[in-house]
Amino acid sequence: MAFSERVARLKSSLIREILAAAQRPEVMSFAGGLPAEPMLPKVEWAEMPTSMGQYGMSEGEPQLREAIAAEARALGVPCEASQVLIVSGSQQTLDLASKLFIDPGTQVLLEAPTYLAALQAFQLFGADCIAVPQEADGPQIDALRKTLESSKPAFAYLIPTFQNPSAVRYSEAKRDAVAALLDEFGVTLIEDEPYRELVFDAGSATPIVSRLKKASWIYTGTVSKTLLPGLRVGYLIATPDLFPYLLRLKQSADLHTNRIGQWQALQWLGTEQFRSHLSELRDFYRVRRDAMQNVLNEHFSDLADWQVPQGGLFFWLKLKEPMDTRTLLDKALAQNVAFMPGEPFFIDPDQNPGYLRLNFSHVAPERLAEGIKRLAAVIREAQAD
Amino acid sequence: MAFSERVARLKSSLIREILAAAQRPEVMSFAGGLPAEPMLPKVEWAEMPTSMGQYGMSEGEPQLREAIAAEARALGVPCEASQVLIVSGSQQTLDLASKLFIDPGTQVLLEAPTYLAALQAFQLFGADCIAVPQEADGPQIDALRKTLESSKPAFAYLIPTFQNPSAVRYSEAKRDAVAALLDEFGVTLIEDEPYRELVFDAGSATPIVSRLKKASWIYTGTVSKTLLPGLRVGYLIATPDLFPYLLRLKQSADLHTNRIGQWQALQWLGTEQFRSHLSELRDFYRVRRDAMQNVLNEHFSDLADWQVPQGGLFFWLKLKEPMDTRTLLDKALAQNVAFMPGEPFFIDPDQNPGYLRLNFSHVAPERLAEGIKRLAAVIREAQAD
Repeated sequence: MAFSERVARLKSSLIREILAAAQRPEVMSFAGGLPAEPMLPKVEWAEMPTSMGQYGMSEGEPQLREAIAAEARALGVPCEASQVLIVSGSQQTLDLASKLFIDPGTQVLLEAPTYLAALQAFQLFGADCIAVPQEADGPQIDALRKTLESSKPAFAYLIPTFQNPSAVRYSEAKRDAVAALLDEFGVTLIEDEPYRELVFDAGSATPIVSRLKKASWIYTGTVSKTLLPGLRVGYLIATPDLFPYLLRLKQSADLHTNRIGQWQALQWLGTEQFRSHLSELRDFYRVRRDAMQNVLNEHFSDLADWQVPQGGLFFWLKLKEPMDTRTLLDKALAQNVAFMPGEPFFIDPDQNPGYLRLNFSHVAPERLAEGIKRLAAVIREAQAD
Repeated sequence: MAFSERVARLKSSLIREILAAAQRPEVMSFAGGLPAEPMLPKVEWAEMPTSMGQYGMSEGEPQLREAIAAEARALGVPCEASQVLIVSGSQQTLDLASKLFIDPGTQVLLEAPTYLAALQAFQLFGADCIAVPQEADGPQIDALRKTLESSKPAFAYLIPTFQNPSAVRYSEAKRDAVAALLDEFGVTLIEDEPYRELVFDAGSATPIVSRLKKASWIYTGTVSKTLLPGLRVGYLIATPDLFPYLLRLKQSADLHTNRIGQWQALQWLGTEQFRSHLSELRDFYRVRRDAMQNVLNEHFSDLADWQVPQGGLFFWLKLKEPMDTRTLLDKALAQNVAFMPGEPFFIDPDQNPGYLRLNFSHVAPERLAEGIKRLAAVIREAQAD
């Protein structure tokens, strides 16, 4: 069978395999990134008009585009509804952007670590990925400048607010510095913000795209983390030089995003009901985050270092004594504990051993301490070998 | 701005532009291919469990995969649920298959004419498209053999049952002959069947994939033409050598298909309610098809030749005096009539002048005669020049 060249770059997904193993009900899983089931809102469909069953526009529903543009403007993003494209979950933005920008060998600038599924999507299209190290308040600015001086990336892909996996929120100063550098070097920014609304501690975080003066940009978000991921409704907002191409690529990919999910999202966006739901969501996750922090303090303080995440769904641990955490997976699963090794979130996994991503939203509180205790024991035992 | 090479192959969509022009309520549009609005079924959502809002599997909902496999087996397609991938409308199958097979220059075998959006998707990825002429009962078999002897296509993309645009249904003999040739030359078949259930006149049409003995295949369908296109729920069924790659490409494209649409589709597939709806649908479209045939006989019998479509949504007319029908569009729109020029459905539009695709499902019966009369007048006037 003669496949395309890109199929050789199609990686088997470690996440898929871990999540499959974590399906067994006895497994305490810190591996995934699912919203907590009890926090999925009950939604009503009775008022949806039958016409939502008809084919729709590739751009998305006009009212939903207006609502998203209004929310983005409130965040400081200068845009009109005509710049909003509704996508089938924000993963599709990565696919469309890859098609727009990436030929085999095209340079792409990423954070280290970065979102695994983005890395895989860009690599599938043949991207030459370049990374800038992430610090607690955002990327190393000197390293970013040097990278921009010595390379010519088609775009920078950044997740400045509660990044998956590192949970880093860029400081105001670094947001300004990154914007200035992208403007200076004329590099397009793709800013991915799925976790913006899942914020537990105060702190401002105006999008970087709103700070750009010249560079082109794509800003992407989703209702998956705030409403229902099963709707598969996300969006991108793009500068007018990019939008027409992204629209045609969207049409070629799947004609348009499902309208029933778009209609449902529109019932929530901007409403008092949604604000109230988001507030409950933050309270719920904050409690789980704090519980995880307490348990980690008890069992991991001698094993690893970490920052308390101010938003998102993950703790990102760095082992004091680095080792390839992928080798711990089977041992942990044998103890009915699942976690996500950190190495695959780097372009060069073997050069970045010793990170773990731990989700705090899924495991029930009464099993949390036992799960973390077992995981610590697995690490201690491996390091004692 | 440095885009990827493929963006240079990204065509502006003539269909998008025509449909936009046809939006004006005074326009009688024969251009689109939308299901008739009055035939969209009322669907119920009250019983949908909240858990359908959670992330789902990239493969699709297990029960829906089972139901689709059972229907396919009843058609004669040998398959298991494990070979079924739920996609975001069958357009996505074209995107995934393009990613799996097409590098710039990869040969792909198509019917002439073929489905425009498929042609555009394959060309976006750089396919070198080769076409075999379509006759009233399927492709010219001699031409198909010669093409297979002189080329090495990665796959053949065929729409054997009520093709859009030509409405051709392959005969049993041609289905067998095509299967035998694909087996002989070891060419993968992509069989696209969105219109199978929209059949107005008797006639058997067992899928070609069920006749293959050796060649790999992808069979793709959708609920868009039978239930609701706005759900964006389609499926592909693939041989086990192809399935794992298509699954990973699906995951990279959009994680999974929206679950609310999948749940709704599952409420209908295989039920008595669905059989009854399909029967009403066929009756409704048959009446509209017959009305169009009568009006065409009155106004077009001296202008064009055509077959009465036995299924699908389109008449395919060949002008007796060929001319580029794209030049007629503005004149028709000035008369408040929209139609779809046939040339773009060919790899080499300029070598295939004189075809029109006319949808018969959309224009209300009381305006049908007037619309067709005006279109005939536009053609007569252009040919008199």
